[in-house]
Amino acid sequence: MNEDYQVIIVGCGPAGLAAGLYASRGGLSVLLLGDESAGGGMRSIPLVENYPGFPDGVSGAKLGLDMMKQAMKFGLQFRLARVEGIEPHDEYKVVRATLIRGGDVVYRARTVIVAGGASPIRMGVAGESEFLGKGVSYCGVCDAPQFKDRVVVVAGGGDSGLTEALYLSRLVSEIIVVEIMPHVMATKILHDRALADPKIQIRCGTRIEAVRGDDHVTEVEFVNVLTGERTTSPVGGVLVRIGLEPNTGYLKGLVSLDDKGYVLVDERLETFVPGIFAAGDIRHGSDRQIATAVGDGVTAALSAHKMCSLARCTL
Amino acid sequence: MNEDYQVIIVGCGPAGLAAGLYASRGGLSVLLLGDESAGGGMRSIPLVENYPGFPDGVSGAKLGLDMMKQAMKFGLQFRLARVEGIEPHDEYKVVRATLIRGGDVVYRARTVIVAGGASPIRMGVAGESEFLGKGVSYCGVCDAPQFKDRVVVVAGGGDSGLTEALYLSRLVSEIIVVEIMPHVMATKILHDRALADPKIQIRCGTRIEAVRGDDHVTEVEFVNVLTGERTTSPVGGVLVRIGLEPNTGYLKGLVSLDDKGYVLVDERLETFVPGIFAAGDIRHGSDRQIATAVGDGVTAALSAHKMCSLARCTL
Repeated sequence: MNEDYQVIIVGCGPAGLAAGLYASRGGLSVLLLGDESAGGGMRSIPLVENYPGFPDGVSGAKLGLDMMKQAMKFGLQFRLARVEGIEPHDEYKVVRATLIRGGDVVYRARTVIVAGGASPIRMGVAGESEFLGKGVSYCGVCDAPQFKDRVVVVAGGGDSGLTEALYLSRLVSEIIVVEIMPHVMATKILHDRALADPKIQIRCGTRIEAVRGDDHVTEVEFVNVLTGERTTSPVGGVLVRIGLEPNTGYLKGLVSLDDKGYVLVDERLETFVPGIFAAGDIRHGSDRQIATAVGDGVTAALSAHKMCSLARCTL
Repeated sequence: MNEDYQVIIVGCGPAGLAAGLYASRGGLSVLLLGDESAGGGMRSIPLVENYPGFPDGVSGAKLGLDMMKQAMKFGLQFRLARVEGIEPHDEYKVVRATLIRGGDVVYRARTVIVAGGASPIRMGVAGESEFLGKGVSYCGVCDAPQFKDRVVVVAGGGDSGLTEALYLSRLVSEIIVVEIMPHVMATKILHDRALADPKIQIRCGTRIEAVRGDDHVTEVEFVNVLTGERTTSPVGGVLVRIGLEPNTGYLKGLVSLDDKGYVLVDERLETFVPGIFAAGDIRHGSDRQIATAVGDGVTAALSAHKMCSLARCTL
């Protein structure tokens, strides 16, 4: 199989969808490859309060679907596929992918915009993998129903941890937020709200040592990182929000990455490989906000558009 | 009068409103100064099709009001005022402004985000100023009713010229788009739509020499830039969309500007004066899109937030 496009976009979060909108509205042939549905990581945000234009907020899932719908109106094509590798040639790139429904595909594109975001980091403790889907989750919104009326531990006292804790508070019986640092890392407004919520308890200087259960999580062992004291609490769920890792596996050895794996780009968001651009959370220096990812997607698409207009490419 | 804020934002377009949302939601005391209502230049866009999240488009005026409403929910304060000057001091800036309803005001702020955008460039031809508001307009949407059932000339065949021509097409009897360059500068999708519209005629290599009339515009004199040939057409309106000029008058001698007057910034959008940031169309290198302005506003607000958090400022 061999199909040609002017732009291939990898990733269907806000950066990829904004790039898809601009590139296709700009008259280019554009294929978006994503290994999940529209919205990417944004789908797990119950109420997006800080994407400008929605005074009452909007669910991340709806925002993702609406962004996809908007881009497809202008001709964006979408396939559920996982990208395995990109080979750069002077005039085009070869993109190899595996369709989620099965089958390998190969595309050629004049330009590629990588916008695959960053994925949740795992704790790496006993029981974490074993109980995945049985009480351990990386997405509170997706898995909220299984937490109903239970005690839930949220690992991570940053913005995403407290955001999910506040969301789950309506559903669950009690929430214990554990933060390994001596203080909460979240912004003040979220910290204040969490402190004011009687269902939420925050334990700083604490990490999770193990997750245990039978057919579902039943207890978590904590360690006080200063004293080494161990305690155990009966819980019905563990939500892990301790950080992100950029989805750059297929880019290693191809483009330049920083020491944490984020893609290095210039001010037009071009990587060190001409014709390959990076947008959103995947790039070095991103503010990792929906609004900044969207801005990135637009800039990358305009850069790709310029390259396609300047070059007399046959693609 | 002397009031203190952690952040003062100048300009109420998408960059200023996004900065206002993030800075106030981040718990800072924030004042937005704007010399027009919410939305800035965006207010003149009838249907914004390319701000991600609105599959059916949204009017620029509504988008501006909604962005303002969203930011004010988190405590943003707004005053209709024109900024006259900023004095930088080590620990704070002094911002002098004139209230639109009259009166001079002086504020102090730890950080300032300039986001005043860019204003339409005038043609500088005979009759242009004389007939301003009497048929000459820089904003087709604002002034659409006065063009109803008339022949309208749109000066400028770029994206904004053709966007407004397509919008006005529903209202007016005929549209003549004049573009001084030998070809239309707009993106293909807009050019194609304009070509397909029987009410729109495009004249390239043509400029407007003079606007004439009595109590209202009645005719325009054109010059063919290659042959020098002059022609006159009876028209009922002239809409000027030939470019933009950054609103940086009060910044001259304070921050560094490029040769066109746009503000030079680093990757955190800080100007060469610590504590003064620039966001949106006003800064050098902006893509001048709503989505990129919004992304800029968020980045500038996060930069200002960091400065306010690090410094033990009393403001």
